[in-house]
This record gives sequence, C-alpha cells and structure tokens, in this order.
Amino acid sequence: MTQLYLIRHGIAADRAEYSNDEERPLTEIGKKKTKKVASRLKAFDLKFDLLLSSPLVRARQTADILKDTGLCDDVEIFDPLVPEGAIQEWMAWWDTWKAEKGNRGAIALVGHQPDLGNWAEILVWGDAEERLIVKKAGVIGIELPESGSPVGRSLLFWLAPPRFLL
Amino acid sequence: MTQLYLIRHGIAADRAEYSNDEERPLTEIGKKKTKKVASRLKAFDLKFDLLLSSPLVRARQTADILKDTGLCDDVEIFDPLVPEGAIQEWMAWWDTWKAEKGNRGAIALVGHQPDLGNWAEILVWGDAEERLIVKKAGVIGIELPESGSPVGRSLLFWLAPPRFLL
Repeated sequence: MTQLYLIRHGIAADRAEYSNDEERPLTEIGKKKTKKVASRLKAFDLKFDLLLSSPLVRARQTADILKDTGLCDDVEIFDPLVPEGAIQEWMAWWDTWKAEKGNRGAIALVGHQPDLGNWAEILVWGDAEERLIVKKAGVIGIELPESGSPVGRSLLFWLAPPRFLL
Repeated sequence: MTQLYLIRHGIAADRAEYSNDEERPLTEIGKKKTKKVASRLKAFDLKFDLLLSSPLVRARQTADILKDTGLCDDVEIFDPLVPEGAIQEWMAWWDTWKAEKGNRGAIALVGHQPDLGNWAEILVWGDAEERLIVKKAGVIGIELPESGSPVGRSLLFWLAPPRFLL
C-alpha cells in the first residue's frame, strides 16, 4: 500500500506582477510558511521515496524547500502537474512506478489548485466536486489501494491547512 | 458560516473486558493521547461554542478532556451521537441552533466510527462511502454552508489522525 501526499505550493507573488504566470515565485512569507510546514512534516518522520513537482516556478521552489528539509532525496519535474494537467497521465506513471518499485512507501506531488483537490476527490470518491479546501502549502494524504485502479477506491487519511501545521 | 468539528473518542478498554459496550472507559494511554490532541487543538486557538457528546462513557470522557483543556465551556450529551445514530436528528438540532444563535462560530461533536466519517461524507459529498480514515482521537473539520441544507453542500477543510496532532 502506497501513501500519496499532495502538497500545494506556498504563497506566490501577485499575478499582476508577472506577465508569465509560470514564473511567479514564492514570496518571502510564502517561503517562510512553507519551510515551517516542511519542518512539521519532517517532525512527523515523513519521508517520500520520490517527489514529483509541477514545472512552474512556485511549485519547484516549494518542492526544493521540502527536499532541503530532508523530506525526499529527489525531485523530478512532472509536466502533468501543471494547472489543468491530466490525472490519467499520473496514473500511467503510477502503473509503471509500482511495476518497478512495488506498491509501498510514500510519494509526494507538488502542484496547484483546484487540480490537487480534484485529483484527490477522483482517487477517493471517483468524481471531482471541489468539496476540499486546500490552502497554499496545505497537504492531502491518501492511501492508494493494494491492487486495481485507484479511482474511487483510495482512502483519505489526512487533509491539513498550514494553520494546523505550524 | 459555522465550522463543525467531529472528534472520535480516544482509545478505550477492550470489548472483551466489558459486557456493556456503552460502559467501556478510555484506557490510560487513551486518556494521555486524547489530552495531547486536546492541547494541540487548544494551541491552534480553537474554541467550540458548544460540544455535543455521545452518551457512551468513552465519548463522554473524551468530551470532558476537551472541556478541561479549555476547548469549550459546555458539554451536552446528545443521544443521536450513539453508534448508528441518525444524522437527521442532528440536522434538526442544527436548524434550531442556528435559528437561535445564528450560522457562525464552531460546534464540536464527539462520537464513534464509522458514524462520524459517514456523517462527514453525507455533509460533504451527499453519500456515506466510508472513504475517510478516522482514527481514535482523530479530528474532522467541516464548513457548513451559509444557507440551505448542509447535505452534499459542506466543505472539508481538515482531517487529522492523532499521529499528526501530537
């Protein structure tokens, strides 16, 4: 059984300041809060076998903070984690990963809203209905099933806003 | 908008030791862990306007720990929180409460599994599918809607096992 952690990027610079949304970085407050959340996750003894990050700057910076805090050894940029990316592409990746490494351990995804909440709902309930509040630097924890499709068959064990992670 | 916290009772004595399930108390470890969780909730500045508890001993003891930690001033025993209690009775109570006090603040319910997880799913997704893992002394946080029925119209903002609350 694999635990999947979906982590939203931290607070980023205003859209008005960047013509290219993909380049918006974390603000200083965003970095600080994300580091606090990362330290808290580390204090819970979490360790990810792999962290996949959206290619956007604010997600990559969040992923790097998680890595620098010791939560994972490797960050891989994973294009389907862009806004409006397709969960089907992640599921194809997951099939390959578990065929190679087995269905165990922990994987983290760093990305965006509403996508992360939608992906979580698809895995847990089969449909995205936007009923999860996922704050910036918030975390979702899901248990993927032992076998078969994870869609509508995974279990939600954690959803935490940064307010409850500081 | 009201925040509803559903809190499962702590670790209780074995069923084998008590002929009457309703009388099973918290174990010493159960009390200790529940106190730690309560302190954590207090550190988050949570305060419940009212706490409704299942009448069973293990729930009442959990409710008393939350009260003694300063999370609420009052505990009321609420019979529909027994195992297999009807959420409809809580919703009728909620209609009366919000008519009197307004739809704001925070209310906590202390009860049992799978009922609390089922109630949460009914409020958030409209159906109970047992897709939430709710550990003993674990917490669920739900935002009830501004108006109308809460069924399938509430939002989930928190789900935390005690492991991530110590």
